[in-house]
Amino acid sequence: MSSLLIRRANVLQIASDSSSPSATILRDHEIVIHDNRIECVQPTGLDDSHFDHVIDANGMVAMPGLINTHAHVPMVIFRGLAEDVNIDRWFNDFMWPLESNLQPDDVYWGMLLGLAEMIQGGVTTVADHYFFMDRAAQAVEKAGTRALLGWGVFGSQGYDAIAQTENFVREYQGAANGRIHTIMAPHAPYTCDDDFLRACVAAAKRQQVGIHIHVAETMQQTDSSIASRGITPVEVAEKVGIFEVPAIFAHVCDALASDMTLMSKHKVGIAHAPKTYLKLAMGGAPVVEFRQAGIPVGLATDGAVSNNTLDIWESLRLLPMIQKMRTGVAENMPIPEALYIATRGSAKVLGMEHELGALEAGYLADMILVDTSGLHHQPLHSIPASLVYNTRASDVRTVICDGQIVMQDGVLRTLDPAAIIAQVRANMDRLNQRVPSRRIQEYNP
Amino acid sequence: MSSLLIRRANVLQIASDSSSPSATILRDHEIVIHDNRIECVQPTGLDDSHFDHVIDANGMVAMPGLINTHAHVPMVIFRGLAEDVNIDRWFNDFMWPLESNLQPDDVYWGMLLGLAEMIQGGVTTVADHYFFMDRAAQAVEKAGTRALLGWGVFGSQGYDAIAQTENFVREYQGAANGRIHTIMAPHAPYTCDDDFLRACVAAAKRQQVGIHIHVAETMQQTDSSIASRGITPVEVAEKVGIFEVPAIFAHVCDALASDMTLMSKHKVGIAHAPKTYLKLAMGGAPVVEFRQAGIPVGLATDGAVSNNTLDIWESLRLLPMIQKMRTGVAENMPIPEALYIATRGSAKVLGMEHELGALEAGYLADMILVDTSGLHHQPLHSIPASLVYNTRASDVRTVICDGQIVMQDGVLRTLDPAAIIAQVRANMDRLNQRVPSRRIQEYNP
Repeated sequence: MSSLLIRRANVLQIASDSSSPSATILRDHEIVIHDNRIECVQPTGLDDSHFDHVIDANGMVAMPGLINTHAHVPMVIFRGLAEDVNIDRWFNDFMWPLESNLQPDDVYWGMLLGLAEMIQGGVTTVADHYFFMDRAAQAVEKAGTRALLGWGVFGSQGYDAIAQTENFVREYQGAANGRIHTIMAPHAPYTCDDDFLRACVAAAKRQQVGIHIHVAETMQQTDSSIASRGITPVEVAEKVGIFEVPAIFAHVCDALASDMTLMSKHKVGIAHAPKTYLKLAMGGAPVVEFRQAGIPVGLATDGAVSNNTLDIWESLRLLPMIQKMRTGVAENMPIPEALYIATRGSAKVLGMEHELGALEAGYLADMILVDTSGLHHQPLHSIPASLVYNTRASDVRTVICDGQIVMQDGVLRTLDPAAIIAQVRANMDRLNQRVPSRRIQEYNP
Repeated sequence: MSSLLIRRANVLQIASDSSSPSATILRDHEIVIHDNRIECVQPTGLDDSHFDHVIDANGMVAMPGLINTHAHVPMVIFRGLAEDVNIDRWFNDFMWPLESNLQPDDVYWGMLLGLAEMIQGGVTTVADHYFFMDRAAQAVEKAGTRALLGWGVFGSQGYDAIAQTENFVREYQGAANGRIHTIMAPHAPYTCDDDFLRACVAAAKRQQVGIHIHVAETMQQTDSSIASRGITPVEVAEKVGIFEVPAIFAHVCDALASDMTLMSKHKVGIAHAPKTYLKLAMGGAPVVEFRQAGIPVGLATDGAVSNNTLDIWESLRLLPMIQKMRTGVAENMPIPEALYIATRGSAKVLGMEHELGALEAGYLADMILVDTSGLHHQPLHSIPASLVYNTRASDVRTVICDGQIVMQDGVLRTLDPAAIIAQVRANMDRLNQRVPSRRIQEYNP
């Protein structure tokens, strides 16, 4: 059983009450880690000679490892290839034609590349929704991080695809020493009919897991769902039984008041990826209203073809800014609330609020050290303000996941960036071939 | 006369036609600099033994030094002290009470701190609008960067203040070997009456300089101007003669159609600082419409008490994202147009479009090298996309201003960050004293 002591940190503490968030800093504290759990957080003072590893965090902020609640990590291999287009063309002329090039090895190397980028930026857990997820799981195992993996399926693939992804869920549940959890991942109500979604729910129940699905990505999707099915995408989720299992809804960029009520009554969390919404002009997403309705919200990056990076700090910064803009109220989404969403809120969306999202005794030892000594933070009148509005991914210096150091002082310990980049670059010419008529799906919600 | 050769760079070229922007990359090119001017840009191949300095930029992007068209740089000393409040309280309860603590030395050290942050982020020129600008000028001289400095005045200070700032304009015009230009800087129509503004214009004409002023920061300012003066802030500018000199209008977060027409007919540029507008819920600013009307737009950070950083990359990224969102059109403000605004557009707002904002023979040698080798750029399918949507200030490696290297490989050559931070920190306890009733002005537009 290994032991790790982090000394002299400024430890961010977010109160657990979602309805009145507060952010405080415990100055000059130490964090004691045994095996993969936090044993205690207390003023610096322990004799450090009894620990296997000691990290001096003098002047750094210690905070929970960041959680990316919705991504398509391996998509990094395509980034920069679909710019300045609307969501229809983004799917039909770019993303889905590009993905017709996808091979299992691309997922492995893309996942490694994205995980390396996320570790550098302090992300220790990702809820990923993509294809060939057995290969993605191998990458997570190697990276040493935590993941909730879902193998995406479309209705057009037929019921065999559900059986295949159910096998994945069963086989990889608890893999990588418990760092990997699994989930069923039907793509969206507009690409899966009711019976197909019901079959996914049945599989989720058999495997005692949840459902991770795209819901109401735009208001137009809600309108067309009403036109074709007579009900909203959120109501489709209810009708097919998704609310009978824990669920992650990606996006929900707009929702009717009745949808809000429905979501507030069930165990569903919303993954919020604001950069994608801005770039694709999908709408601002009513996060202030979700929160008022008591619906858990977490931060996400979505895939890098819409979001360009897997930088959760960008999501953290955009979240309050866009909510202030769209409501016209500068007091909305104050700094402690944004930090709550980035930590405990995101953990709750993954159903792991008792294990992740806080630096407290008994929690899993997922933690990052953020350097606030840079000129762009100085003078440091307010650490919470600097975390939301000044911090860059490059300020993250050290990353610990499951009690293991995966990055120390900016150096990745589990992955070799140069080797990963070389592998991905070698396939660039194949990956950027785009035949619009050759697409894996048609976007016509 | 010193000579400098930058070899093996990927050189960003932005076409000069504002109405149809295009961004291209000249791969493996060299830039020849003699004294403070660019002599030529051509494929790498010169014998490098005849140059005083040679920089190998292999794999880096060379682009024009960034221009911050509106800031209050020394305000960095107060950053993080006014969060989650509306613009009324931001001025009355925070900013203007805090500034009652301001001493000339604070401006000097705050300016040095902000200039150091900006150099690290690739900003080589700033149009700064603040107080005690003789001290700010000394900081610019030391930093080795370029600035257009205006000493802010309020009507309540009386006409002596205009005379004092006119003296500053005369004395510092062309200072620091021509790197410093000056401008008259009345604060805003709502803090200066018509006669006071006319006197500022008269001083500007005498000194053959322009006017840098806050205009229509919110739609409410336009409404209240109509209520009190019968005309909009833009019309006030016309009435008092501001359009008879070159002008920088900071913000213009909303404008009537008639204001658009008026601005399009005169030599006025708009400084756009989107992060501030989001944080203070001031509105999205109709940049798409400004551009359609042919009004020059440049990027800005405003001061760090609203913007938190002086990071122009944040402004560059928010600009297209917010325009896509507010218009609901994802095709609006495409990548080449955002890059045009960041380079030639910003230069034009400062009236320096023939000297700054492009890497071309005859232009001033203000240039930065951006490292795109980081994981968050890879694989690099599109350099222009990566510059807008992936680049962080920390990717800037080398900064050249007026032909001199002010940062090389991440190391500042003209400033000592540790010494500057120590000076600023020493005064933190005094600076964060905030007595709401002790304010330098009253915000009541």
